[in-house]
Amino acid sequence: MEKRNRQVLLRRRPEGKPVAEDFEIVEAPVPEPAEGEALLRNLYLSLDPYMRGRMSAAKSYAKPVEIGAVMEGRTVGEVVRSRHPSLREGDFALGGYGWQLYSAVPGGGLLKLDPEEAPLSSALGILGMPGLTAYVGLTKIGKPEAGETVVVSAASGAVGAVVGQLAKRMGARVVGIAGGAAKCRYIKKDLGFDAAIDHRSEGLDAALDRTCPKGIDVYWENVGGAVQRAVFPRLNDFARIVMCGMVSEYSATERQPGPNLWDAVRKRLKIQGFIVTDDFDKIGEYREMAAPLLRSGALKYREDFVDGLERAPAAFIGLLEGKNFGKLIVRLAPGPTRAS
Amino acid sequence: MEKRNRQVLLRRRPEGKPVAEDFEIVEAPVPEPAEGEALLRNLYLSLDPYMRGRMSAAKSYAKPVEIGAVMEGRTVGEVVRSRHPSLREGDFALGGYGWQLYSAVPGGGLLKLDPEEAPLSSALGILGMPGLTAYVGLTKIGKPEAGETVVVSAASGAVGAVVGQLAKRMGARVVGIAGGAAKCRYIKKDLGFDAAIDHRSEGLDAALDRTCPKGIDVYWENVGGAVQRAVFPRLNDFARIVMCGMVSEYSATERQPGPNLWDAVRKRLKIQGFIVTDDFDKIGEYREMAAPLLRSGALKYREDFVDGLERAPAAFIGLLEGKNFGKLIVRLAPGPTRAS
Repeated sequence: MEKRNRQVLLRRRPEGKPVAEDFEIVEAPVPEPAEGEALLRNLYLSLDPYMRGRMSAAKSYAKPVEIGAVMEGRTVGEVVRSRHPSLREGDFALGGYGWQLYSAVPGGGLLKLDPEEAPLSSALGILGMPGLTAYVGLTKIGKPEAGETVVVSAASGAVGAVVGQLAKRMGARVVGIAGGAAKCRYIKKDLGFDAAIDHRSEGLDAALDRTCPKGIDVYWENVGGAVQRAVFPRLNDFARIVMCGMVSEYSATERQPGPNLWDAVRKRLKIQGFIVTDDFDKIGEYREMAAPLLRSGALKYREDFVDGLERAPAAFIGLLEGKNFGKLIVRLAPGPTRAS
Repeated sequence: MEKRNRQVLLRRRPEGKPVAEDFEIVEAPVPEPAEGEALLRNLYLSLDPYMRGRMSAAKSYAKPVEIGAVMEGRTVGEVVRSRHPSLREGDFALGGYGWQLYSAVPGGGLLKLDPEEAPLSSALGILGMPGLTAYVGLTKIGKPEAGETVVVSAASGAVGAVVGQLAKRMGARVVGIAGGAAKCRYIKKDLGFDAAIDHRSEGLDAALDRTCPKGIDVYWENVGGAVQRAVFPRLNDFARIVMCGMVSEYSATERQPGPNLWDAVRKRLKIQGFIVTDDFDKIGEYREMAAPLLRSGALKYREDFVDGLERAPAAFIGLLEGKNFGKLIVRLAPGPTRAS
């Protein structure tokens, strides 16, 4: 056990794409848990596109991280000291503790994890917020019906991979858009998507014509930009657009215009956004459905591990450019003895 | 009774705004009703913005009117000859018969009207498709809650006036946008809107700030363009945008870009379009609700009558520029003897 805490702070607000100098790595004392709190040694840190929004002062759905404060993020940790009745040393738990090695946090806000149920790191991906995001967006907005065509952008990512697999289970035909041959092979061969579009090597218009001969009934929006522009004219009557994110535009200094909304009238489109934290109470229901599928191999996932807190800034910068392949997770410690 | 039929044909497809030369008025024989048909002498012709779409070859939700064909439109007519068992001479009926004095139409597609229930012309406006449009869009998409702020564009028009009055009955605070002092006075004084914005004399940004201090929860989109651009940044979290029409853009030769959709994610907006004909089966339910309110004076409406078929093209051109004040209706005949 390290004697000192280490933390990644937001040093300044990025202009456009974040760079290494926007972050600062500092040492700090390991915090003392107050009454009702637990001290956690963090094992895994999740890196997700939404964090780009937290780095900006611009209005968003959550408050920005203050300059000089610890970057926000979900981690899986091991309880090393507990002053909360329901947690004891050696327990594993999920919560929002930031980019740091140790956190002292109120015990009531923690989700205890059983390493026998599923690998601990999966609580940051397929069994955590990204998986729940896919579940909520599909069941509340997308509602694909058997035989419909679903297009998923950022399809090999933490959310997209689950969207595609759940949509397949709902009987839809699923087309994924990803960057690079390896990711495209992965979503087709391993995840069972019906078709894949490599946006780095194919023109989007021709590729969508090729893979969606009957048009698009559900579009899962993770990226915005050029993909959104190519998808819109191909939407069928009564299509649903699940507005989950627009990662290609997160670092833009100025917002580009969107599609003219006349199609929303004439095609009766439903364009609806959501934030998974509004539906976090569905996490139990979702995990109950997904964990057995995970164990049986019916639901597949892929993790992209980076080792060491000091590598988090570079990994996050790469995430915004699509350099990760699977759920991006920073391993903060060699890991617990009981499970990986 | 005239001996000859008269019709307005589509002479050519307009480029941009329609002009008088796009139409042609011709004489034709009064048609003979076939078995199962009725011959109607049309009394009232409804002019509505959607007709601009029918004049174009561009893709829309309905097929375009062919060059040389009679312009499409709903009319209220009187049966002058019947070869259908459920209709007899002197009956009044609503249907889609086009811009013409006589129509021979299948009797099964007609909605019989009782002039004692409500004035016949109201079947083209507040008790017809425009009223049903307001009802369907509010109950299916907008769903205003008590205390929420609803903004209605084209607020004194056939649809907007009903939207505002129904939203008030649902407990919402209603702000209408209309062109000119008279229309603004009308929606406030006569229809009971909480506030009015005259887009001809006020800057939209300042006017929306003034009238919507708590932001906008439901936006009823009738116009698109500048109003849409001013409304979007003022939408609250979980706002609903009822995409009913975009009349300010109907004559545009090129579509303008729309709003960047990042707000749809971060504010969890729902932007949804609809076409009233998809829900025409609700006309009975709607009329049952609205007709008593109309008779008691709780629901108000205003009609803008133009006399004579030959005036229809000019009146329609004016409609697209907001020159009408109330539901625009062409009176084709002096009217029935039994009711106005």
